[in-house]
Amino acid sequence: MPDAAPRHPFDEAIHLAPADPGPGTVPGGRVYTGHTHPAYANMVGPFGGITAATLLQAALIHPQRLGDPVALTVNFAGPVADGPFTVEATPLRTNRSTQHWAILQRQGEEVTSSATAVFALRRDTWAATELACPEAPPIEALPRTDVGAIVPWTRQYEMRFVHGPLIGPARPDDERDSRSLLWLRDEPQRPLDVAALAALCDAFFPRILIRRPRRVPFGTVSMTSYFHADTAQLAAQGSQPLLGEARASHFGRGYHDQTAELWGADGRLLANTHQVVYFKE
Amino acid sequence: MPDAAPRHPFDEAIHLAPADPGPGTVPGGRVYTGHTHPAYANMVGPFGGITAATLLQAALIHPQRLGDPVALTVNFAGPVADGPFTVEATPLRTNRSTQHWAILQRQGEEVTSSATAVFALRRDTWAATELACPEAPPIEALPRTDVGAIVPWTRQYEMRFVHGPLIGPARPDDERDSRSLLWLRDEPQRPLDVAALAALCDAFFPRILIRRPRRVPFGTVSMTSYFHADTAQLAAQGSQPLLGEARASHFGRGYHDQTAELWGADGRLLANTHQVVYFKE
Repeated sequence: MPDAAPRHPFDEAIHLAPADPGPGTVPGGRVYTGHTHPAYANMVGPFGGITAATLLQAALIHPQRLGDPVALTVNFAGPVADGPFTVEATPLRTNRSTQHWAILQRQGEEVTSSATAVFALRRDTWAATELACPEAPPIEALPRTDVGAIVPWTRQYEMRFVHGPLIGPARPDDERDSRSLLWLRDEPQRPLDVAALAALCDAFFPRILIRRPRRVPFGTVSMTSYFHADTAQLAAQGSQPLLGEARASHFGRGYHDQTAELWGADGRLLANTHQVVYFKE
Repeated sequence: MPDAAPRHPFDEAIHLAPADPGPGTVPGGRVYTGHTHPAYANMVGPFGGITAATLLQAALIHPQRLGDPVALTVNFAGPVADGPFTVEATPLRTNRSTQHWAILQRQGEEVTSSATAVFALRRDTWAATELACPEAPPIEALPRTDVGAIVPWTRQYEMRFVHGPLIGPARPDDERDSRSLLWLRDEPQRPLDVAALAALCDAFFPRILIRRPRRVPFGTVSMTSYFHADTAQLAAQGSQPLLGEARASHFGRGYHDQTAELWGADGRLLANTHQVVYFKE
């Protein structure tokens, strides 16, 4: 009875059920219903990473899906209230080896998040990694960070910081930088797949919190992730920790960018991820 | 008679005229018609940057527009044939200081490109730039690159390479890297605005051409740009050259990522831009 086995909270959180498409759905579009999960709650609404994974999931389970995700952009349009939502996934165009998606999350009539995704059938080609995998002590040598008292979703991730923790020693702003280097993985442990990887791409705290810790409003407005591993390569990672490095290049006029990489335990680059973050003051 | 003055080819290329919205348009959506421009032709179809600028233009001229673009993602879904196209821009959600857009380019019934954009009313906040502006000799000290014999659109840009030109000395693959550093601007010169900046974000050649020059098929499938300057700050750049730096982190299984920055003449970071590029072999 595999259905009776307890599911990982991540799988509960991204679970979508087919729904009545309704009158406005375009050809090929499918509507699913989901529900926010308390384990992945943020200060207001859900953790952005779980929203990203849920929107991607709507394309992953769509009957017309082709291949694996290569690119995912999620725009956080407004707060998601605790409760039910719908996700509408539409394959805009399916080519021989690529597929383009539009995905909308709604609560009532209001769009709460939008996404686009590119899927592809991948095959072997020439390969090279130019970026060097950062050096880090083994995960066992580092203390575990617990910031779960502040936001519930962080309890769903094991995080061990090499550099740039959320709660670090007080330093003047001009001696700080926005770089973080950490080991991270799902908690409880869970074999890696692309939905989990999409969520991990948002598990780096917004860099404004690292660079200039103040109690000011902030939030990711748009996030784009590029995936460099297919289903089999991700499955081979199992539940080993990933090494993540994040930094910002510019803060100003209420927004900052953020760039990060997620490296597999074997030193393979699994994803690049970029976002733009709103901050006040 | 300002209307009689000759327009810059860029403004001709991104020109959109209001069209009949048609039966399938959602509330708030506006449909415009445009036409490919021979000056911005690529090997097949138009230069991706001019498509990105054209899709952004549909939101910029939409009567419900709020503020300036902060983030733009363009997905290149299929080839754009020389000729007319439509662009449908829909404000998915307008908040007090942010606005979320979905934009579709079509030829006939077929989606050729899709985009999302986040616009925002920006205001002064704490600011810092962590990334260092790369050092480069003055533009006058460098020779001008002409690759216009290969693809028409490159004649629309003045490009002067400090490092990583398209056509460089032959070297073994393992001695090459994918980094380019160059001065670039519109040709003929044109005062900078966000549409031109969105196009310039794609004016870096796909890194596979720099790292491993081979005659193999390639093409950008998705591009995301973050803009760090508002209308007034871009206008202050005038037609001075921008300094651009681009590199890839990973090539493999038919795709590579690419990251670049565009710096203003005053050393101000104007945009970060990221893309994922298909390549064969």
